[in-house]
Amino acid sequence: MTDFKAWSRERAEHFEACAKKALPPENKLPWKLHESMRYSVLDGGKRVRPLLVYAAGRLVDADDEALDHIALAVEYVHSYSLVHDDMPCMDNDSLRRGKLTTHRKYGEAMAMLAGDALQAQAFFELTQAKVPAEQLVSLVKLLSAAAGPAGMCGGQAVDLLAAHSELNLEMLSTMHRMKTGAMIRASALMGLYAGRTMPDVALVGAVATYASAVGLAFQVVDDILDVTAETAVLGKTAGKDAANEKPTYVSLLGLEKAQAMADEQIRLALEALSTIDPEGEKTERLVQLADFVIHRDH
Amino acid sequence: MTDFKAWSRERAEHFEACAKKALPPENKLPWKLHESMRYSVLDGGKRVRPLLVYAAGRLVDADDEALDHIALAVEYVHSYSLVHDDMPCMDNDSLRRGKLTTHRKYGEAMAMLAGDALQAQAFFELTQAKVPAEQLVSLVKLLSAAAGPAGMCGGQAVDLLAAHSELNLEMLSTMHRMKTGAMIRASALMGLYAGRTMPDVALVGAVATYASAVGLAFQVVDDILDVTAETAVLGKTAGKDAANEKPTYVSLLGLEKAQAMADEQIRLALEALSTIDPEGEKTERLVQLADFVIHRDH
Repeated sequence: MTDFKAWSRERAEHFEACAKKALPPENKLPWKLHESMRYSVLDGGKRVRPLLVYAAGRLVDADDEALDHIALAVEYVHSYSLVHDDMPCMDNDSLRRGKLTTHRKYGEAMAMLAGDALQAQAFFELTQAKVPAEQLVSLVKLLSAAAGPAGMCGGQAVDLLAAHSELNLEMLSTMHRMKTGAMIRASALMGLYAGRTMPDVALVGAVATYASAVGLAFQVVDDILDVTAETAVLGKTAGKDAANEKPTYVSLLGLEKAQAMADEQIRLALEALSTIDPEGEKTERLVQLADFVIHRDH
Repeated sequence: MTDFKAWSRERAEHFEACAKKALPPENKLPWKLHESMRYSVLDGGKRVRPLLVYAAGRLVDADDEALDHIALAVEYVHSYSLVHDDMPCMDNDSLRRGKLTTHRKYGEAMAMLAGDALQAQAFFELTQAKVPAEQLVSLVKLLSAAAGPAGMCGGQAVDLLAAHSELNLEMLSTMHRMKTGAMIRASALMGLYAGRTMPDVALVGAVATYASAVGLAFQVVDDILDVTAETAVLGKTAGKDAANEKPTYVSLLGLEKAQAMADEQIRLALEALSTIDPEGEKTERLVQLADFVIHRDH
């Protein structure tokens, strides 16, 4: 098994170069909008969603450039959601990815527009992928469903309505499945549509199971890190959930059981992969990504 | 020439019924998000963009249901832009389409999410149109380009940066071509992609010219109405531009020259249509829509 760190660093750097090239330039009108869009996407984050796109792309005969366009699209949507989520009317946070949040740097109006423009640009970016049109339509379907009211935005609304209220484990899971899980699931699935033909149904099913489990584990680990990690390592304000009295997997289950839940999800994720790739040749990066999600320190 | 009022009323009612059915239901979680999305779209507006979709669809062998999906998509994008534009960090308005603005009714956080969800839902709605996949990809391209940094969001950013500053006629036109023109142009063009085959190049060119001119006329008339109409008729706060010291066609040209400019644009729009339909059979509704844009009182 080759080094995951080297691969993920290379992919993240490659992604950064693609994003620098693809995002609208700072020297062209409306330059302030372009600048704030670039600020919101570039130079930050673990790039988990792009990594999932690239890793899943190895399971099919994926076109490299198509994977880049898909990776950009999912990260634009993720980035815009962070920009809007950090705004005063939502979480009112001033630190993100170790930098000032977009609205603290460019003002609220420009931050809102930067987020809006990034979402539109995500769909435009998708259309630039040179894959058969039927597959492109599937990509638009997957991304829009994951980003919309049944996915990310819906999860954020549940989160908003749940603040300061009692939430049981089932409701918490529903919320996270929508808020972060849907986009993580979509990222992995979208990588499968960058090949020359529609992906095999069994492949889609296995990757969907894998990504749903990884998405849940990702959130549980997020809740654990919010309690155990330092702000400097996290790149965002630590201890925020407790301060906001938000229900988390840790507050509902305790640290130990939350960790066990994350472990169990990773086990389920790897089990799903083994059904389509018993030798573990093509799924190597997905396996490593699952491992990274659970063992990361930020 | 059959009655435009009857046609546009029937189409608006049909659109309303489609939107009621297509928007996520209020009785399903997250119901507050669904409710605020529905509030932001339903029961309001002139539906100029859907009318353009339906009118342009007559030029091709358009599928009726596909036109509905396209009309929903363009109106979702337009509605979300109004929701975000009305928020305190932007125009801080409390009245829209004769009702409380979405953030005044549901709070800022939910209004931002409703807008975000509507944009995602617009692209999902597009994918539901039963047209050949290549045409669907064109539809996604047209909508995302018109909504993004080179279109609507870009125009809003220029508008934001131009507030309280001097703007010459060229800059003002650029701003409006992006802010409202791009989506009006896209609406008409998208109607052409609801047929069984890719639309003819000459047709696309003529409709693009028509819609660009109508979009400009639409904005000039908007500026005129801001000065001449009453808030009650307008359904939004009148005299807002002057109060905000915003440059408008009226402030730069005066009422009379602004009116002449709108008239000239409509002439150009009709001229473009006559090249593809000298008898005026298929373009009847587009001609009437141009006439409506310039003679409307709100």
